Amino acid sequence: MEDRETFHCNDNGDAGGGSNVVEIYPLSRYFFGSKDAIPDKDDCPADRIQRMKANYTARGMRTCVHGILLVELFQHPHVLLLQVRNSFFKLPGGRLRSGESDVEGLKRKLSRKLSSEEKVTDDDWQIDERIGMWWRSDFETLPFPYLPPNLHRPKECTKLFLVKLPTTRHFIVPRNLKLLAVPLCQLHDNNETYGPIISGIPQLLSKFSFNIIQD
Amino acid sequence: MEDRETFHCNDNGDAGGGSNVVEIYPLSRYFFGSKDAIPDKDDCPADRIQRMKANYTARGMRTCVHGILLVELFQHPHVLLLQVRNSFFKLPGGRLRSGESDVEGLKRKLSRKLSSEEKVTDDDWQIDERIGMWWRSDFETLPFPYLPPNLHRPKECTKLFLVKLPTTRHFIVPRNLKLLAVPLCQLHDNNETYGPIISGIPQLLSKFSFNIIQD
Repeated sequence: MEDRETFHCNDNGDAGGGSNVVEIYPLSRYFFGSKDAIPDKDDCPADRIQRMKANYTARGMRTCVHGILLVELFQHPHVLLLQVRNSFFKLPGGRLRSGESDVEGLKRKLSRKLSSEEKVTDDDWQIDERIGMWWRSDFETLPFPYLPPNLHRPKECTKLFLVKLPTTRHFIVPRNLKLLAVPLCQLHDNNETYGPIISGIPQLLSKFSFNIIQD
Repeated sequence: MEDRETFHCNDNGDAGGGSNVVEIYPLSRYFFGSKDAIPDKDDCPADRIQRMKANYTARGMRTCVHGILLVELFQHPHVLLLQVRNSFFKLPGGRLRSGESDVEGLKRKLSRKLSSEEKVTDDDWQIDERIGMWWRSDFETLPFPYLPPNLHRPKECTKLFLVKLPTTRHFIVPRNLKLLAVPLCQLHDNNETYGPIISGIPQLLSKFSFNIIQD
């Protein structure tokens, strides 16, 4: 594997601030348990859209924060995704409360979806760089990775943050969700299965070199 | 336009190092001229692949560096692309010489494609963050935004850098190339026209907030 490691560490000439090297640890370092289900807010997609519209009228633009958590398997980075009802996939995260910062909100949501404790202060999520943002002009249409021209009142902004995992930890997942590690090579360009936001994650991560820490 | 600007500047809670705000200036601030054509190295795509293979045997992996230069038009960011023979599009940039750093090589290539002077030292290109990397396992296949699993000897690595433009400048372009400003909304998801690397640029830029400086 010498060649791969040489390529990964070749970070000469990078002119930006901050490190472009991300350390990732084998999936075997992490442990998984379950907790009570988080009840669904909506019975069907139409209910969800109805709820989004009512919320927009009451509170204005919806801002969501999502975490990208990476582990290594077969020498390749994998993203931790939550699967809902054996069908669609989502990133851990969710909607910000009014007045809450991106980092506070993301920590709260990660704890709710992935920890036994719900108190953020008890948890140690290390929120790193924001690596992407998507905008929705409408709750029924596809999001775009830019504010669409002539759109003066976006309905939703989704921000993606890299979350750096410690060398080991327990994940405690609600019983109605499944936590899966999905390889970058399966996500890439796979809009059909994962939707535009998740299938674009490999591109958003491509600026980083991964330093895979072996056991 | 007040709403848009509020959205663009809402950068609270970002945990990464470095600024996420990119200032861009109207296209009207820039001036365009031409210079002698840069001769084509290959008569046809098959010749190009032959040349790439011979170079790989002689020198090993090919590393390319490309610059993403942004201007504003109609309140929306546009990317400067070079069009070759009224057909395909490419980013300004090219192959690194042996021993050359990413930044040195990109400055040299930007001057060759976009300036009257070829001497890097006379030029003032401001190379910012690396925002993406693509790998090719073969010169005949599509690139991927990750090192494909089990690929021990990639043939090519393409690195994309954000280049910050000054408030005004002249671009001097070889006569056999056309310099075009293409809006993000036209590039996004438009693999067919622009290929996977260029059509993915809006996603790679989505982490930034654009501060559009008006005249």
